[in-house]
Amino acid sequence: MTDIIKDSNRLFIGNDVPTDYQNPNSNLKVHSVVKPLTEEEVIEVVKYANEHNLVIITRGGNTGVAGSQTPFLGNEIIIDLSLMNKVIELDKETMTLTVEPGITIETVQKYALDHGLMYAPDPASKQSTIGGNVSTNAGGMRAVKYGTTRQSIRSLEIVLMNGSKLVLGSKNIKDSSGYNLKDLFIGSEGTLGIITKVMLKLIPKPLYNVTTLLAFDDEVIATETVINILAKGHIPTALEFFDKESMKYSEKLLNKKFITQKGNAYLLVTVDGNDLNTLNNTLNQIHDISSGAVEKLILTDEEAVDAWVMRDYILYGLYATTKFEMLDEVVPINQFAEIIKYTKTLEKKYDVKVLNFGHSGDGNVHTIMIRDNFTDEAWPAVRQGFLDDLYQEIYRLGGLISAEHGIGVYKQEHFLKNTPKANVDAMRAIKQALDPKNLLNPGKIF
Amino acid sequence: MTDIIKDSNRLFIGNDVPTDYQNPNSNLKVHSVVKPLTEEEVIEVVKYANEHNLVIITRGGNTGVAGSQTPFLGNEIIIDLSLMNKVIELDKETMTLTVEPGITIETVQKYALDHGLMYAPDPASKQSTIGGNVSTNAGGMRAVKYGTTRQSIRSLEIVLMNGSKLVLGSKNIKDSSGYNLKDLFIGSEGTLGIITKVMLKLIPKPLYNVTTLLAFDDEVIATETVINILAKGHIPTALEFFDKESMKYSEKLLNKKFITQKGNAYLLVTVDGNDLNTLNNTLNQIHDISSGAVEKLILTDEEAVDAWVMRDYILYGLYATTKFEMLDEVVPINQFAEIIKYTKTLEKKYDVKVLNFGHSGDGNVHTIMIRDNFTDEAWPAVRQGFLDDLYQEIYRLGGLISAEHGIGVYKQEHFLKNTPKANVDAMRAIKQALDPKNLLNPGKIF
Repeated sequence: MTDIIKDSNRLFIGNDVPTDYQNPNSNLKVHSVVKPLTEEEVIEVVKYANEHNLVIITRGGNTGVAGSQTPFLGNEIIIDLSLMNKVIELDKETMTLTVEPGITIETVQKYALDHGLMYAPDPASKQSTIGGNVSTNAGGMRAVKYGTTRQSIRSLEIVLMNGSKLVLGSKNIKDSSGYNLKDLFIGSEGTLGIITKVMLKLIPKPLYNVTTLLAFDDEVIATETVINILAKGHIPTALEFFDKESMKYSEKLLNKKFITQKGNAYLLVTVDGNDLNTLNNTLNQIHDISSGAVEKLILTDEEAVDAWVMRDYILYGLYATTKFEMLDEVVPINQFAEIIKYTKTLEKKYDVKVLNFGHSGDGNVHTIMIRDNFTDEAWPAVRQGFLDDLYQEIYRLGGLISAEHGIGVYKQEHFLKNTPKANVDAMRAIKQALDPKNLLNPGKIF
Repeated sequence: MTDIIKDSNRLFIGNDVPTDYQNPNSNLKVHSVVKPLTEEEVIEVVKYANEHNLVIITRGGNTGVAGSQTPFLGNEIIIDLSLMNKVIELDKETMTLTVEPGITIETVQKYALDHGLMYAPDPASKQSTIGGNVSTNAGGMRAVKYGTTRQSIRSLEIVLMNGSKLVLGSKNIKDSSGYNLKDLFIGSEGTLGIITKVMLKLIPKPLYNVTTLLAFDDEVIATETVINILAKGHIPTALEFFDKESMKYSEKLLNKKFITQKGNAYLLVTVDGNDLNTLNNTLNQIHDISSGAVEKLILTDEEAVDAWVMRDYILYGLYATTKFEMLDEVVPINQFAEIIKYTKTLEKKYDVKVLNFGHSGDGNVHTIMIRDNFTDEAWPAVRQGFLDDLYQEIYRLGGLISAEHGIGVYKQEHFLKNTPKANVDAMRAIKQALDPKNLLNPGKIF
């Protein structure tokens, strides 16, 4: 490998591998870490790994929460793509931005805005990379209007384990020219190939956005309101749900009060567009629909920024004061209240404090299990019971275990338990077809 | 097979197969035609075919233009799904409609409208089936705003060649739970599995739509206008391009004049939404952008319907008076004028009369080669030269051979010539993984 990567700052072998790359809960050590600068270097490393039967894990910003980018086997090569972080081309006419995979979402968003355009997906981890976002099909706040990462990917360059290169997708908007391989690789968590280039779809930046906060006495009324808003044809940019209990963590960390103290469940709704009158009309119509709300506030621009920051800080507040595990379930939008109510029954059954917040416009709940009541010894059994119950109910309601974080390692057991065998068999057959030696991130997803 | 399908109106073997199912240009005969009523019958037929190593071709409305549903080998079983044409479930809360695959697009559109909802894709062949639309990822007029069939498919049930059943996708809007197999099957032209159930995404029917006709002296100015409209963030429901020469076929067939005789190239633009003022403002802004137009007409509802009908009748006019072949190329939107200009050079070079119309909002041109100047003997060589040149140029401009019709048989040669070998190899590997005996519609696409 020293023939491939000659720069000692970009290749770490054996004991020289920084601890940050090791699995913190394991004594197994990785084989090496390489930080390529070019696709050619990636291909050379892949060929080396193939020849020596070494497992490859690809890593971007290391912000994934499902364990997809974590080594569990020992003796892996970690390909860290964080140095492949350049903008390659902005094409304003086709509104596409071509980038290397290691560029962060923060850099992409800023770059687009600086050029009067917008990259629509908005995952919460701003230091996550585009390559990582593609690998988990990351979602975020704006997915209800603009879709997840998938809907903003025009093209991918992929290095396969046999060293060949695929160019999937194009600047063309429509494509019925052969199998759609692009969407197969999106969300495949680094198990099918290594992403070396990404062409993103940009959109013209909407000129205006306006925000309203709706407060409800309980989550059932809030959820019914969501369904009614969507049924009237409104497509908010963001339509977030959170409970008062969750907001307290943000209030405590920021040492300030949320804009209202009324109600127990909130919807924070932003709409965007180029015509301010239309947007204000839309908020008025949403207020008419929200007859069950105990408070309906139209926020000033400053208040809106503040409310969204406080929404974001729920998670930081939790990190600062508790030990918790965040889930990523999704249900059909008309089951959102059901699943939240069910988590409350589990709260009682297992004595695990439960919070809920999430993207109610697309049925994605981030249930939080706070484990402060339990010792490290007691927790695994409680967690197991809680998750067994919860995921059984989620699948019964037609839901899925992961909306936007991926399966990785941590959700694998329940994913396999609840996914039809024929589906998993088909995934395995495709994995086998594209990576016959099972060297690309094995043991992840299934 | 008589054990599986007992009804003699639904099973035709050997010489009893109606001629409509045979390849009109071949003496080879199919083995049999079955018309299942249930998924269980499909599975039994697949098992029979697998056991006897018989090739299966699945057929819906038989409106495909790429030859995907046509038998070319002899001794095939044709599974005709036209009797599996029921609505299974309308779920108004999740705005999903579950149907059998043999239901026509016309029936689906009407059913949705009757319930205050809309199925957004609008392929021109109203007798095509949803299963067929999924298999070619059919597009149509409204793709610029609402996407192709792919964007409106929530879930598919698929029977694989091994007789197992996949349920891909769900009522959930987001999904990062394992490989995305649903999008792999969409557009796979019946080569990977047999679709037995489809869940469609519906949307609230927009309350209003308004239409403008823009006339230009030439197609370059028309195309620049398209780019400028999209760059300003307008998302028309439909943004169609056609040349005056094409419209003459419609005028002749319908024996009436188009709404304007000015200019040589037209854009017909419809926008939809729930606020009429906003829509009228949008048309005014589009007029401001369209400074190169020699005529800008806002159409009454009646005129709009009439203009769209006349646009649709271009094709019927061609059928009535000429022999022609319709292509389905797509280019990045900023190459639309380039490719149209290039077809005009081929018109001169080969003495083949050329017309162009298409979905300029998404770069999809339907170039028409009129072969009236040529005998059946002379035509193949002329056609070959014309297409060799055209597709080379299309790929040089970053385009693709098919936007919405598929590859089938008729576009296979040029698809394979212009697609990187690594991509085709990956497609073949996946085909082999899911259909190891190559019994599902072999010889199509690649």
